Amino acid sequence: MDWVAAALDGDRRALARLLSFVENGTPEGQAALAALFPKAGHAHIVGITGSPGAGKSTLVGKLVKVFRERGAPLAIVAVDPSSPYSGGALLGDRLRMQQVTPDSGVFIRSMASRGHPGGIAHATRDVLAVLDAVGFPLILVETVGAGQAQVEVASVAHTVVLVEAPGMGDDVQALKAGLMEIADIIVVNKADRPEARQTVRALKSVRQGVQQKGHHGLSPEAVSDAVEAWPFPILETIAIENEGIAGLADTICDHRAYLRASGQWNLLLRRHARAEIEAWLQRHLLTLLEERASTADLEASVRLVLQREKDPASVARALLRSLMGADTCD
Amino acid sequence: MDWVAAALDGDRRALARLLSFVENGTPEGQAALAALFPKAGHAHIVGITGSPGAGKSTLVGKLVKVFRERGAPLAIVAVDPSSPYSGGALLGDRLRMQQVTPDSGVFIRSMASRGHPGGIAHATRDVLAVLDAVGFPLILVETVGAGQAQVEVASVAHTVVLVEAPGMGDDVQALKAGLMEIADIIVVNKADRPEARQTVRALKSVRQGVQQKGHHGLSPEAVSDAVEAWPFPILETIAIENEGIAGLADTICDHRAYLRASGQWNLLLRRHARAEIEAWLQRHLLTLLEERASTADLEASVRLVLQREKDPASVARALLRSLMGADTCD
Repeated sequence: MDWVAAALDGDRRALARLLSFVENGTPEGQAALAALFPKAGHAHIVGITGSPGAGKSTLVGKLVKVFRERGAPLAIVAVDPSSPYSGGALLGDRLRMQQVTPDSGVFIRSMASRGHPGGIAHATRDVLAVLDAVGFPLILVETVGAGQAQVEVASVAHTVVLVEAPGMGDDVQALKAGLMEIADIIVVNKADRPEARQTVRALKSVRQGVQQKGHHGLSPEAVSDAVEAWPFPILETIAIENEGIAGLADTICDHRAYLRASGQWNLLLRRHARAEIEAWLQRHLLTLLEERASTADLEASVRLVLQREKDPASVARALLRSLMGADTCD
Repeated sequence: MDWVAAALDGDRRALARLLSFVENGTPEGQAALAALFPKAGHAHIVGITGSPGAGKSTLVGKLVKVFRERGAPLAIVAVDPSSPYSGGALLGDRLRMQQVTPDSGVFIRSMASRGHPGGIAHATRDVLAVLDAVGFPLILVETVGAGQAQVEVASVAHTVVLVEAPGMGDDVQALKAGLMEIADIIVVNKADRPEARQTVRALKSVRQGVQQKGHHGLSPEAVSDAVEAWPFPILETIAIENEGIAGLADTICDHRAYLRASGQWNLLLRRHARAEIEAWLQRHLLTLLEERASTADLEASVRLVLQREKDPASVARALLRSLMGADTCD
């Protein structure tokens, strides 16, 4: 069966199957990626991240509903380190509980954090490329739980939404610690809680510092003069009561318009392309290492390090040199 | 000045200087690493991680006091993504506030998460190797804030302590999501809070699941039969009142004894060595890429991807092939 053709034709079961090949890095998956690559590059990829307990799942459920009512099909990818397996089931259940009918306009996919040959970031990029190529104009990437996935979402998304709950944002030091610098939109969910006001205030003070540094790692000079700077909005929502969700959807669309108008869209694409090439370089190198360096060579290297006869940097240099064949000049 | 000799001789300013060279990946730093490498491999490296707000800093401060009273010198490394610069100042201030006198037996070092040529995990490993080599028998690595650092601490530590506050541990899904699987000891701090009991209960239920899977990623079969399995203790502390801290120090030492007796110590060293060799391979490769591939080549590759003429995997394969010189066979 030609899974690529079927997936392009709108067959969702074929798409799910294809994504499994791609996630597992099978030859079939790699061929599909290469075949689909020219068709990708149109989707708006929105990362949704934040601390556990901020109500992200509910928020995503409501957001999906709003976007669906507006018409366009969308895909949701949950990077879920707690899930032992990939597929659609787990996330589907969560969304069903929030009364999002998994109609034909919504495609959902859970990704476990383990079992991807090139790491979760790599697998996520590949899955997104496929969803993009088969024509979803909007893809939400939700990170479940804490840790690495939160940080990596920024390397694949065009727009990053950081969801905080009242009280959680008060640890200013923690906020500065990375996550806020990658966010484009901040949401204080559960905004009816008494601590909400203080949290918004704390977030605004952190925002100032981040803005001065130049947002999203792109230097302010990179932004076209003709366009006003992105205001880095801090929104308040009560997801469970559907409050503020339409506004969040609008802001997400505004951010896309801003990226396009300011020229940052192209900068982001360039940066993503470069990161992806480097990731593939590393992955190819490790494959090469497994193919060419015998297990005995590798074991011998590890032994040299364990016996403290050679340091890891030197051992790696020697291994690389032997991989490179003739080159023994340095 | 011979910084290595001075650092080995106990000169703390020389050590600090040396660590800066190492962190920045200067040739001097790399030479020092190679020179010190044979002397390392004796320290017990203890990672201390957990959610922001769990009271980790206070806990570490009290723990340092207990260990100091027992006599051995120790080093503390704070991997601090919120800090714009590396050095000792920030962490020193925090510890001073907690009345830990930075006497000559305690060496403290803050590491910013940015500005390390090979990434923070790489820089942390290098800093730890130096501290180990100059003779600290115990090194605490504290991660500040959330994100990647928390996950990476497991790749450098022998013993991982996960600190939770009451209420924070109730999101069982989030806990399962990675962090708990890397922990050897769990601490519920602020144990006098009313929610503490429920948190301990929730943690115990998660622990069961983790234990069944085989702890710390090492399969249960790898453990020598002669040694009982590590009980994966869940401790309660009230750091601010110094309660439970001595018990935590004991448990950390117990874990080291367990690792040694069970044979897992050697397994960990083997795994760390292999991870380090692979990290250096990647780093050498990127250096090579910068040296050999002209900027024009790299830019041309990025352009091919942006114009969707070639996918990143193919572009990377071609780049790697050109780096490898003569080899054009596949």
